[in-house]
Amino acid sequence: MAVRALWWSGDGLDLIDQRELPARTRIRHLRTLPQVAEAIRGMAVRGAPAIGAAAAYGMALAQRSRRMPPDRAARLLAATRPTARDLFVGIEVARAAWAAGGDALAAAEGYRRAIVEECHAIGRAGAPLLARKERVLTHCNAGALATVEWGTALAPIRVAHDEGRKLFVWVDETRPLLQGSRLTAWELAQERIPHAIIADNAAGYFMQRGEVDAIIVGADRIAANGDFANKIGTYEKAVLAREHGIPFYVAAPWSTFDPGTPRGDRIPVEERGPDEVLRLSGVATAPRRSRARNPAFDVTPHRFVRGFITPAGVLTSRQLGPALRAHARRAVDAPRRAAEQLT
Amino acid sequence: MAVRALWWSGDGLDLIDQRELPARTRIRHLRTLPQVAEAIRGMAVRGAPAIGAAAAYGMALAQRSRRMPPDRAARLLAATRPTARDLFVGIEVARAAWAAGGDALAAAEGYRRAIVEECHAIGRAGAPLLARKERVLTHCNAGALATVEWGTALAPIRVAHDEGRKLFVWVDETRPLLQGSRLTAWELAQERIPHAIIADNAAGYFMQRGEVDAIIVGADRIAANGDFANKIGTYEKAVLAREHGIPFYVAAPWSTFDPGTPRGDRIPVEERGPDEVLRLSGVATAPRRSRARNPAFDVTPHRFVRGFITPAGVLTSRQLGPALRAHARRAVDAPRRAAEQLT
Repeated sequence: MAVRALWWSGDGLDLIDQRELPARTRIRHLRTLPQVAEAIRGMAVRGAPAIGAAAAYGMALAQRSRRMPPDRAARLLAATRPTARDLFVGIEVARAAWAAGGDALAAAEGYRRAIVEECHAIGRAGAPLLARKERVLTHCNAGALATVEWGTALAPIRVAHDEGRKLFVWVDETRPLLQGSRLTAWELAQERIPHAIIADNAAGYFMQRGEVDAIIVGADRIAANGDFANKIGTYEKAVLAREHGIPFYVAAPWSTFDPGTPRGDRIPVEERGPDEVLRLSGVATAPRRSRARNPAFDVTPHRFVRGFITPAGVLTSRQLGPALRAHARRAVDAPRRAAEQLT
Repeated sequence: MAVRALWWSGDGLDLIDQRELPARTRIRHLRTLPQVAEAIRGMAVRGAPAIGAAAAYGMALAQRSRRMPPDRAARLLAATRPTARDLFVGIEVARAAWAAGGDALAAAEGYRRAIVEECHAIGRAGAPLLARKERVLTHCNAGALATVEWGTALAPIRVAHDEGRKLFVWVDETRPLLQGSRLTAWELAQERIPHAIIADNAAGYFMQRGEVDAIIVGADRIAANGDFANKIGTYEKAVLAREHGIPFYVAAPWSTFDPGTPRGDRIPVEERGPDEVLRLSGVATAPRRSRARNPAFDVTPHRFVRGFITPAGVLTSRQLGPALRAHARRAVDAPRRAAEQLT
């Protein structure tokens, strides 16, 4: 895989500054927890699985600096953004290792590897869905940049493409921050997967004309009942998909699922500053006296989702609960089983 | 009314170059038909009623230049953009006067006055719909800039605001050309009508939260059965409005209604160049290798429309046919009645 969002450099976290793509591929070298927190808050790194991994490495940097206890480091990172579940999982994995006297860096590395493996499994699980679904629409960026490698929504597309299947991707540009045209199109261009960027407004037009066979998106948090938060505009596409009988899939690793949040209306939605809407590339696009509202996410009820593409296969919302409990047992059992093998 | 899109200057057509708003209010002075055609094609002037009026003045300039016959002038203007019905009505009104030995300029002036009067009537007809609908969402710009004065979708909002009612307008920014944030917000800011600009992706979010009481949009062409073309993204908002039980209205003068087009699937939809999607304010927002698709309009089936706000009142799609026939009789009869009054 050519594209990676972030990696441990030996003495810190390196990541591609996603705000500068596609114009420049600039690598940021982060050496402190506050630098990692600022990169997450300012969206130099974004995408739920990727910010989970970045936060775990931020904990590792804090442990090495010996300037604060693990709980304080965890609180600083947790305050950066409210919606993505993965952020809190990534922090907790590293915090628990640190607090137990272990190495937060080893925990972060393990977390990153697990995410990459899960995303690859998502790709294998989802690719068969695209056997006769050649024209796939996606919203925002749920590719390698959002998830370290492979992606969530883009993983099935990558796997199907690698198998030689002919696919075409409709890329919602995804205002206000244009993660679709800047990041998803950049990833697809790197791998020469045919695609076209469209204004978010045009997705319904192409669905109405029968030119969209399937929709796959990522998620920032999935509640216990299957309601999920994702980039603003996802809900609009889900309603339109149902209107046109187009299957709508959500692809996510385990860290995005939040059994502690019963329903979507309990997911906190971040509202970001108005300038993301009122300016573009530094140029004002609105009158000086005008206000803006800028919710970064919306919540889509589970009834709009045909299936959740998980590392354990494609599941309905009713199948999520048992699958999550099975995953939790495996995850908890893994250290015990590893220990048993040693003895 | 402070805002006017265009006016006759004595020796030509003056208009606000809408591509430069809100940064600069630059007036273009057009003295030839090719200049008017280029202003329409390049969207210096846009909005169905406004381009109808501009085209009528273009015919007047051609008549004065004595360089071409009326039919050739009409063909040149008709080739600029395909979707808006008003363009062809504006051309035909002036062409018929010219071909009959009359003054195309007088016809253009009459056409402009009629549009302004109709838009004011639309405002009076639509304002009562907003009595308990305080938070109105609109898409694109269907204000004075799109219609010479008053606007279509904005006319009921203006009239209600002038009556002292408290209103709040959600302004879809309307990618790719941002007519919402650049033009609608500019008009609302001029008149100090409270509003907030949102990414087109956020409209569904605010509908889902119960923060949108009504939606009013303009139209570029309304087929005989009530299906209508309007700026790309209108269809998405209409589907979402029905999902949430929010009344959805279409405001238009008579020139937008096209009894000769039976259904929406017969309306030609303009596809514009990809750079409108791939660049913003001259800055590339996508990778060089990426393509884009850029339909400028979509077609919304009449079943999504609660009512058409016309100069003759608010009508259902079933009432459109009789109302249009009555209007045609009045329009045809007007010269005869005027003549009778003289004798």
